[in-house]
Amino acid sequence: MNNTVIRCAEADDYKAIIAHVDAWWGGRRMAQMLPKLFFVHFCQTSFVAEQDGHIVGFVFGFVSQSYPDEGYIHFVGVHPGFRKGGLGHLLYERVFEAMIRVGCRKVRCVTSPVNKGSIAFHLHLGFKPEISERIIEGISVFEDYDGPGEDRVLFSRTLSRTAVR
Amino acid sequence: MNNTVIRCAEADDYKAIIAHVDAWWGGRRMAQMLPKLFFVHFCQTSFVAEQDGHIVGFVFGFVSQSYPDEGYIHFVGVHPGFRKGGLGHLLYERVFEAMIRVGCRKVRCVTSPVNKGSIAFHLHLGFKPEISERIIEGISVFEDYDGPGEDRVLFSRTLSRTAVR
Repeated sequence: MNNTVIRCAEADDYKAIIAHVDAWWGGRRMAQMLPKLFFVHFCQTSFVAEQDGHIVGFVFGFVSQSYPDEGYIHFVGVHPGFRKGGLGHLLYERVFEAMIRVGCRKVRCVTSPVNKGSIAFHLHLGFKPEISERIIEGISVFEDYDGPGEDRVLFSRTLSRTAVR
Repeated sequence: MNNTVIRCAEADDYKAIIAHVDAWWGGRRMAQMLPKLFFVHFCQTSFVAEQDGHIVGFVFGFVSQSYPDEGYIHFVGVHPGFRKGGLGHLLYERVFEAMIRVGCRKVRCVTSPVNKGSIAFHLHLGFKPEISERIIEGISVFEDYDGPGEDRVLFSRTLSRTAVR
């Protein structure tokens, strides 16, 4: 990843990302989770990774307006050919730094209990699952959190300057 | 609407709204446009209308973090039995007031060019369409704005204390 550049996301990145995002998830319909508003209105805490002029990863976060000392990471994606190389980790670090800069002391995100890779990734980065009454394969799950049948693991992590490289 | 109460949206409203929103749109799949994050993180600029303990309308807005003097209205819905009575107008006024209170001077939203009711509603409330090169039935349309085939009318409106009742 020597020549990978991470920069703030821009509205003009929308077409390039939306054209590929479903394919990066093996054909799952993901694009609907990324309406253009995330590209336009949350640039400070959203980043893309480029290599040779092509977007190979992205992350979209924002600062909670209900809880201004908390950030929320909505969506992260890495090109299948660039996984396992630490790019997701680098993208998250950029978001953490940006959130700390605007006063956040905690960051949250949610993931699906079936997405074992995502759960391992977040645990590795120091996220802790919120405790629920239902435990599945050792991790707390909130039933129907994102709609009927849409169970979620709710992760949070303290943000502090010393915790980020 | 004498006994209609408008209050801030809360995370706990999610289940009630998501259970009905597709039906309010005549069966169109709208729920995916309203992930729970809007209920959790943008409470200051999001409202629900209740009558006799039942939610009959809602609006979800936020303050742009890229353009902090601009608000954005993401989603508004009114129960079919409560339309044409001014409830949408009342919900928008509450959002305008909330956005002005936190320093917004402009509010934006987007709608589909085929949604004539929405276009008329926004023009009536003083929104102006952003000018594009493509005019369809008298209104500027941005092609593929929200993805392939997803054309949008981009509305904006100045916010000032005197413009709100």
